[in-house]
Amino acid sequence: MLGSGNVATHLSQALHKVGVKILQVFSPSLTHAQILAEKLGCSFTNQLKSLNLTADLYILSVTDDALPELIKNMPIKNSLVIHTSGSTSINIFDSVHTRYGIFYPLQTFSKEKEIDFKDIPICIEANSSDDALKLKTLGEKISDKVYLINSEKRKALHVAAVFASNFTNYFYLIANELLTDKKLSFDLIKPLINETALKILSKNPEEAQTGPAKRGDDQIISTHLDYLNSHPEYQKLYKFISSQIKQKFSKQ
Amino acid sequence: MLGSGNVATHLSQALHKVGVKILQVFSPSLTHAQILAEKLGCSFTNQLKSLNLTADLYILSVTDDALPELIKNMPIKNSLVIHTSGSTSINIFDSVHTRYGIFYPLQTFSKEKEIDFKDIPICIEANSSDDALKLKTLGEKISDKVYLINSEKRKALHVAAVFASNFTNYFYLIANELLTDKKLSFDLIKPLINETALKILSKNPEEAQTGPAKRGDDQIISTHLDYLNSHPEYQKLYKFISSQIKQKFSKQ
Repeated sequence: MLGSGNVATHLSQALHKVGVKILQVFSPSLTHAQILAEKLGCSFTNQLKSLNLTADLYILSVTDDALPELIKNMPIKNSLVIHTSGSTSINIFDSVHTRYGIFYPLQTFSKEKEIDFKDIPICIEANSSDDALKLKTLGEKISDKVYLINSEKRKALHVAAVFASNFTNYFYLIANELLTDKKLSFDLIKPLINETALKILSKNPEEAQTGPAKRGDDQIISTHLDYLNSHPEYQKLYKFISSQIKQKFSKQ
Repeated sequence: MLGSGNVATHLSQALHKVGVKILQVFSPSLTHAQILAEKLGCSFTNQLKSLNLTADLYILSVTDDALPELIKNMPIKNSLVIHTSGSTSINIFDSVHTRYGIFYPLQTFSKEKEIDFKDIPICIEANSSDDALKLKTLGEKISDKVYLINSEKRKALHVAAVFASNFTNYFYLIANELLTDKKLSFDLIKPLINETALKILSKNPEEAQTGPAKRGDDQIISTHLDYLNSHPEYQKLYKFISSQIKQKFSKQ
């Protein structure tokens, strides 16, 4: 396992749990490598030249920024090497490695929050059908939802995921800030947040849309924009998104 | 019950269920009034002059745009009149009615999706402590979470709710559109959406934030912006929100 961040940690623990032997953890930070290695009962290093060369599979689970350099500097070239990134094309391995692929778990991972992989979609791609099958079999050890998905589609998934997860969490953060301003507890809107997420299990998001912009309730929109005078960035966001929603639903 | 929209429908059904007698449904649309009245086993009208004058409580559950006119034209002036709006101040009743208040259920309501009120925060306000207590007692018949909250705080809650619910649902809608473009199923990101919402039950949104902007992964951000060339509105949103997230987390 090359990497020691959230994805590296959760994925290697999930694999370890179902009996997949992790031989070694590599991380530029020796401390981080050690912390993860201790959970997995394996060795660790921060030197690529000390990389264990006998593994069946090398999982590169680092930021996209760090991937090109790591791929180039790997001391092995003929073993199966994969990355776990949503947005990096499989082409990144071209002309450096001979066997390569992708193993992209579509989920948000945080430190110190355990997660059940069973329900996490895993998107697989490889430069040979043999290795695609190997990765699919590996994925199915931890998840019920393993799909073969090419780089172009995977990128669409990742962009969608940023909106549906990272940006929605940022809106929870804005909400929390607005409530804290008035000494109100964030707990007050937790039921709302959960119902909003649950609703799209049974309705598509167009049917599920509610709120002042959807109803074209300009009175409320203008009250809210006034309210946000002290938060110009949030005001700009509110205005922009409301006008998009209004436009979308007025067409229907 | 004056109104026949989502809030009016769900709220009157919840009250009806616990034995609160709804005497009559009023709606400008006679058909809508009738549909709801049939569920409640009560009379209905689309004429304010035919309003039942014997009720203990008149609940105005209409859009904020429609509230001022309705409040002015109510044929009763000395009974308890309340609205269910998040953003309309209690002052709207001033000098028209003598007993008035607010009963604001903080939740997203959709037609044809049943909802359990037990967990829904209800925000109460009234112009007398007697009536505040009456409304609190009424709220507690359907919910375990009834709070006295003034108009200013209620507005903060409503703005926060728009971000945490309406705008997040809009992002589910964008995600759905991006997936549909590539013939990918929306089901693929449902586990992600749910985990994102579940996560803030145990972590605050700052701790829960993940994604390229949080990590400052400019490589991915730029790939995603390129990908969104065919959706300039979403591209603008992506750029704006990512820069806000980057700024917020780079300060820490």
